[in-house]
Order: sequence, then structure tokens, then C-alpha cells
Amino acid sequence: GAEYFVERGDLLRLSRPADSHKGDFGEVLVIGGGPYTGAPALAAQSALRSGADLVRVAVPAAIADEVQGYSEDLIVRPFDGTQLTEPAVDPLLDLAADHDSVVLGPGLGAGEATLSAVEAFLADFEGTAVVDADALRVVPDVETEATLICTPHRGEFERMGGQDAADWETRAENVAELAAELGMTLLVKGPADIISDGKSTRVSRTGNPGMTVGGTGDVLAGVTGALAATLDPHPAASLGAYVTGRAGDLVVEERGYGLVASDLLDRVPTAMWDEQP
Amino acid sequence: GAEYFVERGDLLRLSRPADSHKGDFGEVLVIGGGPYTGAPALAAQSALRSGADLVRVAVPAAIADEVQGYSEDLIVRPFDGTQLTEPAVDPLLDLAADHDSVVLGPGLGAGEATLSAVEAFLADFEGTAVVDADALRVVPDVETEATLICTPHRGEFERMGGQDAADWETRAENVAELAAELGMTLLVKGPADIISDGKSTRVSRTGNPGMTVGGTGDVLAGVTGALAATLDPHPAASLGAYVTGRAGDLVVEERGYGLVASDLLDRVPTAMWDEQP
Amino acid sequence: GAEYFVERGDLLRLSRPADSHKGDFGEVLVIGGGPYTGAPALAAQSALRSGADLVRVAVPAAIADEVQGYSEDLIVRPFDGTQLTEPAVDPLLDLAADHDSVVLGPGLGAGEATLSAVEAFLADFEGTAVVDADALRVVPDVETEATLICTPHRGEFERMGGQDAADWETRAENVAELAAELGMTLLVKGPADIISDGKSTRVSRTGNPGMTVGGTGDVLAGVTGALAATLDPHPAASLGAYVTGRAGDLVVEERGYGLVASDLLDRVPTAMWDEQP
Amino acid sequence: GAEYFVERGDLLRLSRPADSHKGDFGEVLVIGGGPYTGAPALAAQSALRSGADLVRVAVPAAIADEVQGYSEDLIVRPFDGTQLTEPAVDPLLDLAADHDSVVLGPGLGAGEATLSAVEAFLADFEGTAVVDADALRVVPDVETEATLICTPHRGEFERMGGQDAADWETRAENVAELAAELGMTLLVKGPADIISDGKSTRVSRTGNPGMTVGGTGDVLAGVTGALAATLDPHPAASLGAYVTGRAGDLVVEERGYGLVASDLLDRVPTAMWDEQP
Repeated sequence: GAEYFVERGDLLRLSRPADSHKGDFGEVLVIGGGPYTGAPALAAQSALRSGADLVRVAVPAAIADEVQGYSEDLIVRPFDGTQLTEPAVDPLLDLAADHDSVVLGPGLGAGEATLSAVEAFLADFEGTAVVDADALRVVPDVETEATLICTPHRGEFERMGGQDAADWETRAENVAELAAELGMTLLVKGPADIISDGKSTRVSRTGNPGMTVGGTGDVLAGVTGALAATLDPHPAASLGAYVTGRAGDLVVEERGYGLVASDLLDRVPTAMWDEQP
Repeated sequence: GAEYFVERGDLLRLSRPADSHKGDFGEVLVIGGGPYTGAPALAAQSALRSGADLVRVAVPAAIADEVQGYSEDLIVRPFDGTQLTEPAVDPLLDLAADHDSVVLGPGLGAGEATLSAVEAFLADFEGTAVVDADALRVVPDVETEATLICTPHRGEFERMGGQDAADWETRAENVAELAAELGMTLLVKGPADIISDGKSTRVSRTGNPGMTVGGTGDVLAGVTGALAATLDPHPAASLGAYVTGRAGDLVVEERGYGLVASDLLDRVPTAMWDEQP
Repeated sequence: GAEYFVERGDLLRLSRPADSHKGDFGEVLVIGGGPYTGAPALAAQSALRSGADLVRVAVPAAIADEVQGYSEDLIVRPFDGTQLTEPAVDPLLDLAADHDSVVLGPGLGAGEATLSAVEAFLADFEGTAVVDADALRVVPDVETEATLICTPHRGEFERMGGQDAADWETRAENVAELAAELGMTLLVKGPADIISDGKSTRVSRTGNPGMTVGGTGDVLAGVTGALAATLDPHPAASLGAYVTGRAGDLVVEERGYGLVASDLLDRVPTAMWDEQP
Repeated sequence: GAEYFVERGDLLRLSRPADSHKGDFGEVLVIGGGPYTGAPALAAQSALRSGADLVRVAVPAAIADEVQGYSEDLIVRPFDGTQLTEPAVDPLLDLAADHDSVVLGPGLGAGEATLSAVEAFLADFEGTAVVDADALRVVPDVETEATLICTPHRGEFERMGGQDAADWETRAENVAELAAELGMTLLVKGPADIISDGKSTRVSRTGNPGMTVGGTGDVLAGVTGALAATLDPHPAASLGAYVTGRAGDLVVEERGYGLVASDLLDRVPTAMWDEQP
């Protein structure tokens, strides 16, 4: 139907009253980094570009200086060590409780101790979290009261128990099925992004072949995290996919492929607010 | 009356004689940083963008490298430790004496030892200072011969003893009252910024809902600090509010919301000089 | 003949199918750094700008933080020490095996231990490598099953055993001769870049006198490395020379000489995709 | 006379033959840093923007990482310590011998040990050096066979033994007199920059009141250093003053005052090559 595809009209959700003040658009906590340094910085900056009022980024102390160095706009909260491990979980849960949404995963890597820590975090977390990258591995088995938006690519979708399919219509059905089973919102990335919470399923067709470059997933997670601070999970994920893809289209329209993920940051605001119908 | 609102015509104060030389437009000292790294860097760069000839930024040694790394245009003066504490106060007073104005507060945090140090600094300081953020907490109780411009948001205004009000006209009266009582210039931030020294009260209506993002207050403090190096406190605060808000409007006109505080830096010169009537 | 010169039409090789996904455009490993820090960062960013999906940059631990600091888009893999030495070779061979091409040389320097390590790497490497700068010194004497693209300037070409010549037609013959003898692809840089694998020889005439500045060779190596991840060595080198020179021409057309190597990064995508015939 | 003022026509000296190659436009060594970090980075980047083929920047090891972090285009050569002292002089003299010109001074500070080291360097140096900032203090008393271009502002000119004057015509005579006496080229900065080697005196009228900001002198030193790598001292200093001032005018024409020194970098190439008559 007409509402099946995410379209420009969906952007109408994003207007701002003139008497807005600090806090109205949410505070986001990004938890990431360890083997990768750029990923949490990309997710945090994307969340800011998507209109979050405040974004804190919690990373291992070993990389805190580099992450902070990328921008004066970042607020870095280091935890001990070179990667996420269980001792950091309780302080992170306390910190997370002061935020409207959490983005969990960018650059954490797949170390065994890290995945245990992710599991421990999710088990006790009760807020809204966007889960991406290696952190997705523990999601199917964890018991949690959190509201989750998971953003796997097709390979990760299969590893979560989903069934991939060559045509996107069948894939959409399979996404809906797994979302219903797991009780969460899924955003499965691909040439067409599929978003479902089991009840409603939508497809976003923005984006282009230049976006196969590393880091675009971190941007999508950050954009979706910021939207999830003020919107329900399903529209947040739908708009997250639409806006991130559109930002990539703006870069490619301007100068062809060869984009890098940080190119998207500047175009997110344009994609989100400047093209409202 | 016609002079109630800060308008474009106020920018006429900012012309420059052709035979200006180094020092004519003031030297500014920013004292900040500790739990936050980006805030003092934003304030210092804002002061430069507002035409100060020289800006030094004093921060804890623990973050000096990151602050210096943001720009070749910054001159960082580190003090020992990870946050401002009393041993740094005397050297900072010496350093401050060589500057035309001081910006005190951006990113200092609210640690007890830090607030004591802020209090000790203000007690002995006799120059002009813009006080922002957590440093505002000690202002109502400190006895000082300094000339102060305080830049609280509405919550901080209340904590300083002011009475907030839903309509800005009543609020303006309350701001004037507290300013008179404390003997300083207040710039109370909000959808309409209110500036008063108890005798004269003005309102600046630039700015927009995209400016709820973190860091915009640091920019305002830096802009106001630079203006206070050559202008009296009341016009400095009035123009500081007008210019910072206008810089934010320029960003949003160009591409919608999703601005970050560092976006404002580039637009401050345009807002200040390129739009003179 | 008409196919002798590399022309705009050659860019047609670079189209992208709409259903591309992560990995289709290759993963590149840059090995460099030690006495120079910027060189490996330039090569890695150039590879990303040329459309590689993922670029990792392996550098000595002593400079890893600075390299990582240049961009969130970089993935740095440090090896122990302040320069490349033999203990790093085996882990690098393992890492290289997971990539579609390697760029070996930018910023490694000519330390004796480093050249031994380069030799040891090439002796055991079986993939595709672009070799540049000081690493070229060991190439003529090494026995390897790797597919090599070497990018010497005219002085380095002579040191490799080639015979320089004032007119480029004679030089082209000499390049073809050495390429045949060494069994590799040569890209000899000069006012006209000459590319030959001994069987086919082509000439790229893009580029300008502003490109004598340091670092342009690192960009060429990165661009060629990314192209070699999906194309055969000869067309990869031919397009690498054409695109890098064209990127430099775009900078100079815009504002005259005084370009720096990092200026080229932004123009590589335009030169590669935006000017397709 | 018509040749008294430096004009656009002087830029004609800066054309480039099509068969230029690496090295034709000179290699520059910047020696600076210690109490200031940004200054040597600004000078080095300015030299690159002025067309030097290679620029190395020698700074105390304590700030080497921050300087390197500003740009991939910089090649940093650290010397031991937190400031320049005599043990670094001999290695710097060796390094300097491989360069076409040296820029001595940006950010060195006025520490006693540093000024001794500057004096020792100049006493043994036989090449071409642009001397700026605190390093100027030792110039009048040092005996050297170096070819010097000194770039004092009016206060420093007086400290060097010159006599300032309110009108620039008298000042020009006084500059010529001191230049003749010291046997060097002087570039005395002011609303009108005066350049003299004692025999020929010229005046550059580019520049504007926005350029009173800190760091513009570092840019001028770097531009002049790069020009002195291929031109005689007098035309190098004349064009250095003209181009740096014009770069500042381009910034201010675009958006009013509030410029910072790093703004000039991008405009130097335009001022130098894009506006040739």
C-alpha cells in the first residue's frame, strides 16, 4: 500500500516548536569502541546531526583521547581498559539511565569478554537501545526488558536466526517473522532496507552502491538512536534508514562514488529537515 | 521602545579603523575544561571569531593536548591536574591580569574543589569576566570587585535567586531586579534572551530551536567575552546574544536543524560584520 | 594508436551495479609509516576515495594515534615499534591475506631493518601489491610470486635498473623493457606517466607542475591500490595515473598552484566518477 | 615611482614551466615551537601553500605529536626537550644544510636558553633564513654569513635599533637605513608593510585591520620562507608581504572580520596564482 514505503512525507514527524528548549530533543549515549576508534565517533556525531540535544560517547580509556580529538562537539566518557568488559557494565547502566536512548555496538569488536559485557548490559537495561554490529550476536539469546532496535545487515540477520531471500518481498516477510518472534524492531540493511516490528513492515529505498564503504552502518545506528530518543522504535528505525540513505544519495549526486562515512554527517541535516515536503 | 530590542543597527558599534594594530581588539583568557574538553575550545575559538586579537585558553594539563589539537589558532596554557583546583588560582590571577577580559566556566564541571577555586578566583579578580555554566553557582555568594557578566539559562537563573516567568516581559523585569541586586550584568538565555544590568534591559530575539544542542552556551560565552574586551558589559552582552543567535539562524537557514555548536564558529564573523546595516 | 593514451573513456570500467554490497569493491591494506606519519594516512584515505569498501592501515605503534587522529574513516592496525622490522612481517602477511590488495611503502623510510622486512614480506606474499617509495629499492632483487605494480619516479626507475630518457617515447620503450624483464607492471611518474607490463604500454598526460609537492605519490599509490583490488594490474595502474593527475588538475583549475597532497583526496571521486563520458 | 609599491604585476615572477619536477620549487625547514604549538604549524603550512615542494618542521619533541596531528601534509622532525636549546643546534644545522631556506622563530618563545640557541644557530648558518618573532632579538648582535630576511613588527623594529615613525614615508627611510647597517633584508609589518635591503625599498599595501589577530605573522614568515627558496631575498620579502595581505583581504571580502590565521592558508594560493595579471 501507499504506506508501505518510507517516503518524504514521513519527515513531517520531525518539526520543532519555536519554544523548544534544551532536552526536548533527547540525550543519547553511544557505547562503543575498542578495536575500532572511528566507529563510535561516527555514531555519536550522527546522533548530533540528527538533532539530539546532547550525545555522550562511552569508550575504552585507551582510545578516549583520539575520539575526543575528532570534534569539540563530542562529550567522551571513558571506561577502564582497551575494550568493553564486565567491570564497566554497572557504571554504564547508571550512565545510560540518564539518557533517552542508547546506541550499543559501534566498534566494540567481537572479543569474548566484550560480548559477555554486552549481554550483561542488555540483561539489566530497561530503556531504549539501538544495537548494531558485533553486539547483535548476543541479542537472540538475551532476556531483557529493554526496547530494542536491531540493525543487522543481511549476513547478521541470518546469524540472528532470520532467513535471507533474494527478492525483498519475501525477505520482508521473514524480517517481520523474526521481529515478532524476538519481540523487537528490526532494521535489516540492504539495497532496500526493511523495517519491521512484527506488526508493521516498511521498506526504505534510499541509498546507493557507494554506501558499501565501511562506517555507513555506524552512521545509521547513530541517526536511529537520536530518532529513538523522541519517537517510537518503528518510526525511528524507518526514518533512520530513509534519512541515512538519502544523505548518501546527496553525496553521490554531488560528486560520484568514493564517499566515506564521515561525508554523510554533513548531509544528515539536509536529508532530515531541508527536504521536508 | 525602539531601543528595547537588540537589532542590526547595534552592530554599528563594531567598525574598525584602518590603522588598527595588534592589541586594539583585546586579549581574552578562557578558563575552563576538566570533565569536558570541547567546551573551552569552543569558547576560545568563538572569541577569536568575534575579533579578539589574542585568545589564551587555560585548561587542566590532562586535557591540554586535545584542546591544542583542535586548532593551530589556539594558545593553550595548562595548569596542573585533571580539573581546576585552588593551587591554580594564583597563577591564573596573574595571567588574567594581562588580559582585557576573562571567560570563566566552560567545561569546568561542578566538582566541589573546582567551585571553591572559582570562588577564590572571583574573590581576588578585579577585571571583567563572563561567567557561565557551573561556575555560576558560586556567583551570588561571592564578594568581588570584578565586573561580571553572567550568562545563565533559565534554570540557572532561578538557582541564582531569580524568578523565572512564562512570559518574557515579566521575566525581563525579574532579570533586571536580580541584576540590580547582584550589581552585575545578566544575560538570561531562552527563546528570547534577556540582558540587563538593572538600569537598562534589552531583549534579543535571534536564535532558533536547533540551538538547544550542547555547546551553544560555550559559544555565547566566548563571543560575549571577546566583545567585553573592548565594549562595556551591557552592550557586550546584548551584542553577544544577538550575534550568537544570528549565527545559529544562518546555519539553520542553510540546511535545517541538526546543527552542532562548532557550526556556529564560521558564521559568527558573518553575523557580526557582514550584515551591518 | 588511439588506445595509447589513457583517456576519459577508460573511466567506463568503473560503473557500479545497483545491487552492490559490502565487499564488492575490495578491501585494501596499506603498510607504511615510521619516519613519516602523513604518507600512510594519505595513501589509505586515497584508497577510500577511490571506492574501496574497507581500508586498513598498518603502521608502527609509535605513530598509530596520530594516523588514527586524521580521520574517523581510517581503521588503524598498529605493529610494535617505531618502524617496520622483521618481527612484524608474519602478522602482516596473515593480515594481508584477508585483503584484495596491498599498498606497501608510503612513509616506511629507508632504514636497513625496514628494507629487510619489506624484502621478507614480498618474498612470501602471493597477492597483489602496489609498491612505492623506499620499498622499491628491494624489488629488483626479490624473488616473489606476488603480482606487483611498482610506482617509481624517474630517479627511482633508474635505480631499479631502468634507463631514463629525455623524450617520453624512448622512455616508454625503456619502461616496457624493464617491466618485461622484471615481470611486473611499472608506472613511471613524470610530466607524462608511463604504464607498462612489458606487453602493453600506455601514457597518461593528466597532472600539472603544482603536483611536485610531497605526498602526491602517496595519493597515487593509494588510488592504484584501490583500483587493483578489483581490476587487473595494467588497467589499475593506468587509471590510477589518470585519475590522480586529473584530481590535481581540478585543484589547480580552481585556485592555482600551492596545492597540498591532501587537497587531492576530495577531488579523486570527481575525477573518477563525475567526469565519466 | 611606479615600482615603489608592490603590485599585482610582481606576481608574474611566479610562473611554472610545464616540465617542472620535484625539487624545482624548493625545500623549506621551519624551526619553531616550544611555548607555542600552533605557530610552527601555521608557518609550515603557509610554506606549502606558497608552492614549496617539501616542508619539514623541526619542533621540540614535547609538541611534535600535536604539530603532526594538524595535517597529513606536514613532515615533523622533533628535537629533544620542551623548547629549543643548544644541544639541538648542530643537528639542526645539518638538517638545514639540505634545505633551500629556513624559517626561524615561530613559537620558539623568548626563553634565555632558546635565544642562546638561536644565536648559536645563526652564527654557524650560511644559507638563507627568514627570522621572525622572539628570534629577532638576537639578530642585531650576531655575526653570521647567512642571508637574512627579518620580519619585525614596528615594536620589534625599534628593539632591533630602528626608528619608528608615524608616517610611512619616513619609516621607509629608517627601514632602509637599518637594513643597510645590518646588511640584510627587512620586512617591517604595519598598515603598510615596508621592505628594504638598504638599496631598494618597496611598500606593500595589501592587508586589513582584521589581520591584527595572532598568527598572521607566522603565515607571513612561512610564505616568505617558501618564496626565498627560489627567489632573491628582496623580491621574496616583497611578494611575501603582498600575498599574505591579499590572502587576508580575500577572507575579509568574503565575510567580514573575525578571521583567524589558519583562514589565510587556503587563500594564499589564490592570492599568489589565481590573480596573476
